[in-house]
Amino acid sequence: MAKKRKRKPFITNIRPRFHKNEIPGTVKYTGKKQSLVTKIELIDYSKDHYIRLDSEDIQDAFKFEETDNITWSNINGLNNTPEIEIIGDHYNLHPLIQEDIVTTNQRPKIDEYEDYLFLVFKMLHYNEDGEFVNEHVSMVLGSDYVVTFQEADGDVFDGVRERLQNAKGRIRSAGADYLMFALLDAVVDNYFSVIETLSEKIEVLEDQLFDDNIKDDITQDIQELKKEILRIRRAILPLREVINRLEKIDSKLIDERTHNYIRDLYDHIIQVSESVDIYREMIWGLMDMYMTTISNKMNEVMKVLTIMASIFIPLTFMAGIYGMNFDYIPELQYKYGYFVLWGLMILVFLGMLYYFKRKKWL
Amino acid sequence: MAKKRKRKPFITNIRPRFHKNEIPGTVKYTGKKQSLVTKIELIDYSKDHYIRLDSEDIQDAFKFEETDNITWSNINGLNNTPEIEIIGDHYNLHPLIQEDIVTTNQRPKIDEYEDYLFLVFKMLHYNEDGEFVNEHVSMVLGSDYVVTFQEADGDVFDGVRERLQNAKGRIRSAGADYLMFALLDAVVDNYFSVIETLSEKIEVLEDQLFDDNIKDDITQDIQELKKEILRIRRAILPLREVINRLEKIDSKLIDERTHNYIRDLYDHIIQVSESVDIYREMIWGLMDMYMTTISNKMNEVMKVLTIMASIFIPLTFMAGIYGMNFDYIPELQYKYGYFVLWGLMILVFLGMLYYFKRKKWL
Amino acid sequence: MAKKRKRKPFITNIRPRFHKNEIPGTVKYTGKKQSLVTKIELIDYSKDHYIRLDSEDIQDAFKFEETDNITWSNINGLNNTPEIEIIGDHYNLHPLIQEDIVTTNQRPKIDEYEDYLFLVFKMLHYNEDGEFVNEHVSMVLGSDYVVTFQEADGDVFDGVRERLQNAKGRIRSAGADYLMFALLDAVVDNYFSVIETLSEKIEVLEDQLFDDNIKDDITQDIQELKKEILRIRRAILPLREVINRLEKIDSKLIDERTHNYIRDLYDHIIQVSESVDIYREMIWGLMDMYMTTISNKMNEVMKVLTIMASIFIPLTFMAGIYGMNFDYIPELQYKYGYFVLWGLMILVFLGMLYYFKRKKWL
Amino acid sequence: MAKKRKRKPFITNIRPRFHKNEIPGTVKYTGKKQSLVTKIELIDYSKDHYIRLDSEDIQDAFKFEETDNITWSNINGLNNTPEIEIIGDHYNLHPLIQEDIVTTNQRPKIDEYEDYLFLVFKMLHYNEDGEFVNEHVSMVLGSDYVVTFQEADGDVFDGVRERLQNAKGRIRSAGADYLMFALLDAVVDNYFSVIETLSEKIEVLEDQLFDDNIKDDITQDIQELKKEILRIRRAILPLREVINRLEKIDSKLIDERTHNYIRDLYDHIIQVSESVDIYREMIWGLMDMYMTTISNKMNEVMKVLTIMASIFIPLTFMAGIYGMNFDYIPELQYKYGYFVLWGLMILVFLGMLYYFKRKKWL
Amino acid sequence: MAKKRKRKPFITNIRPRFHKNEIPGTVKYTGKKQSLVTKIELIDYSKDHYIRLDSEDIQDAFKFEETDNITWSNINGLNNTPEIEIIGDHYNLHPLIQEDIVTTNQRPKIDEYEDYLFLVFKMLHYNEDGEFVNEHVSMVLGSDYVVTFQEADGDVFDGVRERLQNAKGRIRSAGADYLMFALLDAVVDNYFSVIETLSEKIEVLEDQLFDDNIKDDITQDIQELKKEILRIRRAILPLREVINRLEKIDSKLIDERTHNYIRDLYDHIIQVSESVDIYREMIWGLMDMYMTTISNKMNEVMKVLTIMASIFIPLTFMAGIYGMNFDYIPELQYKYGYFVLWGLMILVFLGMLYYFKRKKWL
Ligand SMILES: [Mg+2]
Ligand SMILES: [Mg+2]
Ligand SMILES: [Mg+2]
Ligand SMILES: [Mg+2]
Ligand SMILES: [Mg+2]
Ligand SMILES: [Mg+2]
Ligand SMILES: [Mg+2]
Ligand SMILES: [Mg+2]
Ligand SMILES: [Mg+2]
Ligand SMILES: [Mg+2]
Ligand SMILES: [Mg+2]
Ligand SMILES: [Mg+2]
Ligand SMILES: [Mg+2]
Ligand SMILES: [Mg+2]
Ligand SMILES: [Mg+2]
Ligand SMILES: [Mg+2]
Ligand SMILES: [Mg+2]
Ligand SMILES: [Mg+2]
Ligand SMILES: [Mg+2]
Ligand SMILES: [Mg+2]
Ligand SMILES: [Mg+2]
Ligand SMILES: [Mg+2]
Ligand SMILES: [Mg+2]
Ligand SMILES: [Mg+2]
Ligand SMILES: [Mg+2]
Ligand SMILES: [Mg+2]
Ligand SMILES: [Mg+2]
Ligand SMILES: [Mg+2]
Ligand SMILES: [Mg+2]
Ligand SMILES: [Mg+2]
Ligand SMILES: [Mg+2]
Repeated sequence: MAKKRKRKPFITNIRPRFHKNEIPGTVKYTGKKQSLVTKIELIDYSKDHYIRLDSEDIQDAFKFEETDNITWSNINGLNNTPEIEIIGDHYNLHPLIQEDIVTTNQRPKIDEYEDYLFLVFKMLHYNEDGEFVNEHVSMVLGSDYVVTFQEADGDVFDGVRERLQNAKGRIRSAGADYLMFALLDAVVDNYFSVIETLSEKIEVLEDQLFDDNIKDDITQDIQELKKEILRIRRAILPLREVINRLEKIDSKLIDERTHNYIRDLYDHIIQVSESVDIYREMIWGLMDMYMTTISNKMNEVMKVLTIMASIFIPLTFMAGIYGMNFDYIPELQYKYGYFVLWGLMILVFLGMLYYFKRKKWL
Repeated sequence: MAKKRKRKPFITNIRPRFHKNEIPGTVKYTGKKQSLVTKIELIDYSKDHYIRLDSEDIQDAFKFEETDNITWSNINGLNNTPEIEIIGDHYNLHPLIQEDIVTTNQRPKIDEYEDYLFLVFKMLHYNEDGEFVNEHVSMVLGSDYVVTFQEADGDVFDGVRERLQNAKGRIRSAGADYLMFALLDAVVDNYFSVIETLSEKIEVLEDQLFDDNIKDDITQDIQELKKEILRIRRAILPLREVINRLEKIDSKLIDERTHNYIRDLYDHIIQVSESVDIYREMIWGLMDMYMTTISNKMNEVMKVLTIMASIFIPLTFMAGIYGMNFDYIPELQYKYGYFVLWGLMILVFLGMLYYFKRKKWL
Repeated sequence: MAKKRKRKPFITNIRPRFHKNEIPGTVKYTGKKQSLVTKIELIDYSKDHYIRLDSEDIQDAFKFEETDNITWSNINGLNNTPEIEIIGDHYNLHPLIQEDIVTTNQRPKIDEYEDYLFLVFKMLHYNEDGEFVNEHVSMVLGSDYVVTFQEADGDVFDGVRERLQNAKGRIRSAGADYLMFALLDAVVDNYFSVIETLSEKIEVLEDQLFDDNIKDDITQDIQELKKEILRIRRAILPLREVINRLEKIDSKLIDERTHNYIRDLYDHIIQVSESVDIYREMIWGLMDMYMTTISNKMNEVMKVLTIMASIFIPLTFMAGIYGMNFDYIPELQYKYGYFVLWGLMILVFLGMLYYFKRKKWL
Repeated sequence: MAKKRKRKPFITNIRPRFHKNEIPGTVKYTGKKQSLVTKIELIDYSKDHYIRLDSEDIQDAFKFEETDNITWSNINGLNNTPEIEIIGDHYNLHPLIQEDIVTTNQRPKIDEYEDYLFLVFKMLHYNEDGEFVNEHVSMVLGSDYVVTFQEADGDVFDGVRERLQNAKGRIRSAGADYLMFALLDAVVDNYFSVIETLSEKIEVLEDQLFDDNIKDDITQDIQELKKEILRIRRAILPLREVINRLEKIDSKLIDERTHNYIRDLYDHIIQVSESVDIYREMIWGLMDMYMTTISNKMNEVMKVLTIMASIFIPLTFMAGIYGMNFDYIPELQYKYGYFVLWGLMILVFLGMLYYFKRKKWL
Repeated sequence: MAKKRKRKPFITNIRPRFHKNEIPGTVKYTGKKQSLVTKIELIDYSKDHYIRLDSEDIQDAFKFEETDNITWSNINGLNNTPEIEIIGDHYNLHPLIQEDIVTTNQRPKIDEYEDYLFLVFKMLHYNEDGEFVNEHVSMVLGSDYVVTFQEADGDVFDGVRERLQNAKGRIRSAGADYLMFALLDAVVDNYFSVIETLSEKIEVLEDQLFDDNIKDDITQDIQELKKEILRIRRAILPLREVINRLEKIDSKLIDERTHNYIRDLYDHIIQVSESVDIYREMIWGLMDMYMTTISNKMNEVMKVLTIMASIFIPLTFMAGIYGMNFDYIPELQYKYGYFVLWGLMILVFLGMLYYFKRKKWL
């Protein structure tokens, strides 16, 4: 019998937690409340120039503003909404955008304003406890700057940082639009890792289904997987639309040469979402497979019962006959009666065996 | 065995109750008939001005007409159709619109007339008895007025009223179009509460399915949930189209700056409707899970039967043999016959146990 | 066991019965052959004028032709194809249209010709025997006339007739296009009645499924319902497209003011078709519910068997032991042996009861 | 137990049999190889003229070329590919079209070339053995000629031939485009016959499902039907697109007046394909119905077992008690003990009956 | 009981294996690593000229560059990425394209650059071990050259090579665009072989399902087939879009006359993908069929048990009655008691047989 086990608080996760009865444009963080300092990471670069500044003082955020270089400002931590508002106001971001930055369940989207593009997407990973984590990230692309807002420390951008520092590839000689592409590309590449983990989970479940000794709570595992893929889909599918839009956008902010790269990115997000759809179909198929497995097992149980009962019930009846106390039962007085009866019983026994063999139940 | 229980009269609720053979444009209330007075609530405001008037006299409805301010007239109660007609005629509303105002099962829609926009939508909530309630609301947006018509007292607009009174945010300095947005935003925000309640119900059901002792009438609960989500979808999906249309509309009634807000609203309604679709898929999945649960339980029942029968039927047969009354059964006269037989029986018993253990049925 | 019962000849009904190898444009009635007289009902009206003529003489059909008034000619009975051809030729209807008028399984459609619009739709109702009836109706809209062709007497247009006679609403002062709208509106209003009946049937079936004593032939009832909703869908969905087309049409035959009314009609047909889709989903869900109900019942049957067998088979074995005739069975000679055994049996009995109670099988 | 029976070689039929590694444009017949003579049937007609020529000499095919009349050349038999090439080259048909003519698994399509239209479609029928037959037909429409290519003798065009010969309807006075329409119309009309046969098969299966004594191999019959409808869909759905295209085409080859007829044809093909979709849904539903039927039967079997076992196992136990050989069993010596026990047994028996009656298992 | 068997490492195959945190445009082979030499096969041809060169020296790749002829360069082996980069740079291929060439899980696509078209597609086949193989192929079409990149030796292009060598068909007199078509045509033709193999596998499984003695691990086989068709779909569906795009493209690289051939190719890929969809539906249907088969078998097992138990349990009870040791049981002393009881037992036996016969359980 299935043991009670801790159900992961899934639905809570896909449950939207918007602040209700709030004025639209209110900048109020909807994620996990923590008393964290907002960390600011600035990278200012050009073909021949690279400088990095890490600070926890909001005033440092605008330090490289006056330069001709490209500046990537990465903000980690959304708890401190007044600071987000300071940054937002500095970049002239619409109050609704400031709200979206701190609204962690905002779905992926792209908004085109005159002077900047605003993007929302999700960074997905499994944390050290194997729990699926979905980090809300916003990005503003201006003419010579990119600002990214993350919920917490840690991201998938280390490769990009390393290329910026070491001037690998074309990143240092390209514009802010290429930086935006490189960051999105890192996010999408990471989706491949996530669905790889997912596919391993499916493989494990499938192996269990083909195993003779299935646990009863495999339904729970299948159910968890269904929910996981629903959450992954929910992060990936809208981003696919965002990147599609990005490819077609006619904006002075995006250089013609970058479009090839965005198209490549679109290739990748399509590939991920196709995989997600295939895994989804496979997970749903697991349930059907499990059902036939259960039925097969019941069939086997019933066969054992039927064989045992069909063989021994008639034999018991035969013994019962000669256990009767009638005054006159001629067979009882026949000297070899007992042995003759044994012979008959063995015949019945063998007949039944033959019958079940022929039916392929044995 | 499932106890008879009161089924909620669901289908009745999604059953349309149009007045048949009625002249199109007939203003006849189709909701719950009540002898209520129509309540009028007027808020007249501008950047520097705010006045509120509550009345039950229809003549008060047009009091603030001559002013340059923006006026929100909220009408509660649709029973009193002549009064609705007076208001409708005053605002020059087409008879078909007047009909739609009192036709409580009219689906959400937007109609564009030259001088005004007409919207229909639904306010959803669970009442104190946990019953799902679906209130029909209509809205007319003119150049400097908004009129809302509700079925009954009580709504989700208190946040808007408070912002109007205290001049919070941009609402007092913006036009009637922003008021329309603010009201719709309050309605959509409320949908998040409704689906939160729904998600809790799903969680409860899911927990019950993983519980060892499922009630037989869980099918009924799943069925109720299916119906609830069908009704929620029916309110939300068409409103999504309405807001999409509102975003694209080219009307002198809607200010350019308000479009950003409507796009934000569209974000939210998409988010709600995505959640609804996910919950829908999960509810349908519950049925499959329940089916496997039942089958697993039957498997267990059958195993108990098979084990008991397979062990004791052969033993009973053995006892039956030596209960026979043949004159000559040599074993019976053997002194230790009885004990030898017990030994044999114990061997058979242990053999069966071993067999079932190896089959993992024990 | 399910009793044989008369299956309604459903498939025959959705089976198309076109006359094969017929020249296209051949006017040959495909409905139920009857030797009925074609009945002609003429209503000639204007703002200040109303006259009605009922006749069975085809020559009367064109009586009001010369007037400036609007004329509605309603033809009941399509058996008499030569008369249909006379009318068709008089109004200059294309042979293919004449064919469609008498082809009762023609699906709803709209054809735009230069001088007239031609519409096909279905009037649905349940007759006095509870059978679903699907009447084929065609309509021609000219500049100042409407001609309707019905299969048989009886329709849903009495409300329109009454408004024409008593000059209720705008019908007498509006044009032929408004009459067309009013007739279609009556048809669509009637669809609401039909799906109301359908929803009641679903409710009844659902109640039976939650009832302890389900009839075995409920599958048949569900099957009938599935077919009924398929037929209703088949009438409603194409009409939805027709009305959508009608709303967008740019024809001199349709007055600008009538478009508001047609949009309202479109609202209604969408509402009906949404209901149909919901009911369809619910009917398909009934089958799944029934399946779990059967499985639950089997579970219960198996539990009774398992409990009875598990308790009494071991007890019978114990009794069998002491029914053996070994010369030396010490317990048999023990004076209280019989009573001790009873004690043991009661212990085993109680032990089993406790075991099943703990498993919640009792 | 299901008897082995000959499965119809279905999949082989939908399996494409293209000649691989063949130069595109290679005219190689892919259907059933037969050493048949290609038969040529020529009908040359105008309003006042009609002549028919049947020949097996390919040179006769171009006999009526110089006349002003319209010529329909019908070619039966595709084995003789050199002759097809002669005809194809004569009409200046692209090698790829010549290939399509003899490629019997080419799906229905329309290709527009400058001087002619090329159509592929399927003639469906059940042959005398009840097997579904799918004949590949190609058609070329030129300015004053129609050429049709069929796999074998026998078609559905006799009605058209008769109308040509007897100058029935408008066919003799209309152009080659109308002949094309008339031929397609005959093909589509024939589809109605095919799905009528199909619907009868569904009815038969459905009746069997509601019959008490279902054959085990009904799954096979449902499976066959599924495949049949898949094949029918595969012929009909692409033709629907072809006719839709034909309706919208802007070609000098198609007269304005013919468009009305093509629209009518489109009506019919839509009607057929709607029916096909409904039948498909019904066939898939049969499987679910069968599943509940099996479960219901198992329920009944289990009830019989449970009732028999529940009644007789306790009674046997009671008898077993008094079959024991304890030296001291007081009841045995009681004079009426035997009769009292019978009384008790009858009580137990009646009690069980009552219990099962109340549970409605009896 | 299902024997453990080696599951094919399927998911691993559809699992994307992109190199993460790699600079976009990095040319790094993602397929099976092997230390193979890159093989170069050059065919330079015109109407009157044909020369073929096989080499393993990358410098030979550009040998025929200066001629006016058309050159097909086929590169086998993607391990040696520096050589791929040399070729890519020579043809001026964008770094992202060079990356796609060696990224073996890139989905089929077409990229249009100014001077060339870039295509990705998959060659499918079953290898000698019956394993499904999916070879990644890229193609560059320039004005007078085609370059193809394959993962490994062996392809489906031998027919094309033979036509080039022997000047069969129009290939030698047509341009590079026709060569591109001919190669794609060979790939698509090969898909027909693949789905033919697949359809045979379905047939085999279906035969097993209708066989009395189904193996328990047929679920595994169905599961494998599901995965196989998912992988085939994943190769074919995007190529369909590629060819559709190719048909509509307006490029100076593609001659007008070649469009007819591409349209023909599109016909074929549609036909393949339709077949894939039908097979997919059939495979999913196999699972349902298997479920009913299991249930039917269980029904049969239960019938045997019920019949045996229902017949012998009452008879055993009857024997039990007269095995009791009451002092006074009148029947026991009746001389023919034993024989009368036998008579009764035979009557009960026959009654049960009749009952089961009438129920059609025998
Ligand atoms: Mg927002
Ligand atoms: Mg997170
Ligand atoms: Mg990437
Ligand atoms: Mg769970
Ligand atoms: Mg790429
Ligand atoms: Mg699967
Ligand atoms: Mg399922
Ligand atoms: Mg309305
Ligand atoms: Mg309400
Ligand atoms: Mg909002
Ligand atoms: Mg909100
Ligand atoms: Mg679920
Ligand atoms: Mg199911
Ligand atoms: Mg017609
Ligand atoms: Mg009718
Ligand atoms: Mg209406
Ligand atoms: Mg109405
Ligand atoms: Mg339902
Ligand atoms: Mg349901
Ligand atoms: Mg089902
Ligand atoms: Mg054929
Ligand atoms: Mg026709
Ligand atoms: Mg016809
Ligand atoms: Mg059905
Ligand atoms: Mg991949
Ligand atoms: Mg490969
Ligand atoms: Mg080809
Ligand atoms: Mg081919
Ligand atoms: Mg072809
Ligand atoms: Mg199938
Ligand atoms: Mg199924």
